[in-house]
Amino acid sequence: MKEFWSDRIRDMVPYTPGEQPRDRKFIKLNTNENPYPPSDGTLAAIRDAAGAELRRYPDPECTALREALAAFHGLTPEQIFVGNGSDEVLAFCFQAFFTPGRTVLFPDITYSFYPVYASLFGQDYREIPLDGDFGLPVEAFLGGSGGVVIANPNAPTGRDIPLSDIRRILEANSEAAVLVDEAYVDFGAQSAVELIGGYPNLVVVRTMSKSRSLAGLRVGYAMGNAGLIAALNCVKNSFNSYTLDRVAQAGAEASVRDADYFRAVVARVVRTRDAAAARLKELGFRVYDSAANFLFISHDKAPARELLSGLRERGILVRWWDKPRIDNCLRVTIGTDGEMETFCRVIGELVGAYT
Amino acid sequence: MKEFWSDRIRDMVPYTPGEQPRDRKFIKLNTNENPYPPSDGTLAAIRDAAGAELRRYPDPECTALREALAAFHGLTPEQIFVGNGSDEVLAFCFQAFFTPGRTVLFPDITYSFYPVYASLFGQDYREIPLDGDFGLPVEAFLGGSGGVVIANPNAPTGRDIPLSDIRRILEANSEAAVLVDEAYVDFGAQSAVELIGGYPNLVVVRTMSKSRSLAGLRVGYAMGNAGLIAALNCVKNSFNSYTLDRVAQAGAEASVRDADYFRAVVARVVRTRDAAAARLKELGFRVYDSAANFLFISHDKAPARELLSGLRERGILVRWWDKPRIDNCLRVTIGTDGEMETFCRVIGELVGAYT
Repeated sequence: MKEFWSDRIRDMVPYTPGEQPRDRKFIKLNTNENPYPPSDGTLAAIRDAAGAELRRYPDPECTALREALAAFHGLTPEQIFVGNGSDEVLAFCFQAFFTPGRTVLFPDITYSFYPVYASLFGQDYREIPLDGDFGLPVEAFLGGSGGVVIANPNAPTGRDIPLSDIRRILEANSEAAVLVDEAYVDFGAQSAVELIGGYPNLVVVRTMSKSRSLAGLRVGYAMGNAGLIAALNCVKNSFNSYTLDRVAQAGAEASVRDADYFRAVVARVVRTRDAAAARLKELGFRVYDSAANFLFISHDKAPARELLSGLRERGILVRWWDKPRIDNCLRVTIGTDGEMETFCRVIGELVGAYT
Repeated sequence: MKEFWSDRIRDMVPYTPGEQPRDRKFIKLNTNENPYPPSDGTLAAIRDAAGAELRRYPDPECTALREALAAFHGLTPEQIFVGNGSDEVLAFCFQAFFTPGRTVLFPDITYSFYPVYASLFGQDYREIPLDGDFGLPVEAFLGGSGGVVIANPNAPTGRDIPLSDIRRILEANSEAAVLVDEAYVDFGAQSAVELIGGYPNLVVVRTMSKSRSLAGLRVGYAMGNAGLIAALNCVKNSFNSYTLDRVAQAGAEASVRDADYFRAVVARVVRTRDAAAARLKELGFRVYDSAANFLFISHDKAPARELLSGLRERGILVRWWDKPRIDNCLRVTIGTDGEMETFCRVIGELVGAYT
């Protein structure tokens, strides 16, 4: 089967994305998508892009989109890099900033793509164990390194890290790039964007898949000083000159400009999350504090793996990992109020069988 | 400027794509785009994809698109890999099939992204000089290797290679993957797709940017035996699980299904190309036989670099490389009949000053 495969990839274990069912209709709380649609302006911009100009290559520099993002974040376009989803942006970051032989640090429980990138690019890494409550042991990141990757808020726990801790990590690793993956930051954590001016080693990565309801459009971006952004462009232009198609550029730009809609959607998800968290606590769940659009929950009496199957049988998908320390936890994406109502009712019934 | 850059990329020289002017209006014959729009069905499918479902991740396996391509090419979906433009697909091929320390072969004059990929992934390569007329010296590819990359027809020369030569290269390199980059094949070369069943080391790469008028949508694909395709999926899923957005998948699928439109557009470009070639010969140009949607031309008396500037001043962009052996050549994309009429008239006037 692996005839003709590069030696480099024979032993690779790729990332496993959450299930995307194509047949049966589920309440889908397993991949942290937004329950609300993109803004009308976004959809209109996409439809407008469906014209004869598609025969032309897109702008390889995504100029209009980077200008919109710069205005939104109070940065310059030279401080922004845009890619085909934050997964691509993160992969480019690993290539651009980390050197084989110099150890990169990230938590043991975090976005499971980080160790996959490191393996793909032959880089050394060390997984720092989170503490018992899945808090970040900041001290362990202060001894210097070949790079640091931190998700804030973290996935799949939802826990956030204060900016003061990020600042300490930046200062203690001043010789290396520090990536802060803010995929979920809009739902309640403090963004490190305001530190960019002060820390030339800081790269902040964002996605439009969660808070902007555009998982299907594949747009992510990185922010940092212009020298770091130039490194990302060097990698991109050695890999694929045009990673973002015309339609995605147009839709993403319109989304960034529709700031009011974005804020309203985020506020709604946060309200639903907080109500669901309270309800799950009443049902006896441990619910970790979440600054994201999902909840990380566990129950003393009801094994997570069995709840996962029970929910699936009743048409509800959530995410579970067969991994030490978190194998009694479920990650539940925040859906609409109605979906969360159903979810809480069904999981309450399932838990009833154990208590 | 290169503080925090990975040692791996400090000395990288990225690929330089052709100019994409954003202000002035040009007759754009510099990046091998199609002069005709995508089919109506393609544009309608893109507009239909602009809905609430964009909040969901796309199908990571591009199932519907792969099924359409399989039907079109007489293959199975397991023999097809889809990516974000053929540049991404080629980059994945270099990672998936070539191993550092084993020399990969490609011509000295060919798509200039190949050596960039090899450098990015730390791979060894040897550039085999094309013969005086830019023909492929097949014998030089028959000594065994760590991999072969051949563009058919070649870029920027437009010259094609008969299948019998491809077959010899496949047989002489039976321990290694042989990539045949068929970006331009629809305009007149023989495709190697029919060899896939017989050669487990063959990978054929295609783009929808040229013959399908979809440069702006970023869709490319690879075809080969299922084991090779699995290697590409291994790399992709270690890099970016969802490289093709929902809109691109929908548009590309519709384009593949609109086979009549596709054939009509290709035939029209070929007719225009052949007429322009005849006219340029009358003007004293050497015109290399082209099986692509561009012409590679040179003139004994009029230096290519000066023609390039003269054309640009008169609002016409073509492509020129500051590279030994081809620095007196221009690559001219085939536009509409009207655009080629203007191009031939203008270049005729420019050449008049030298003769």
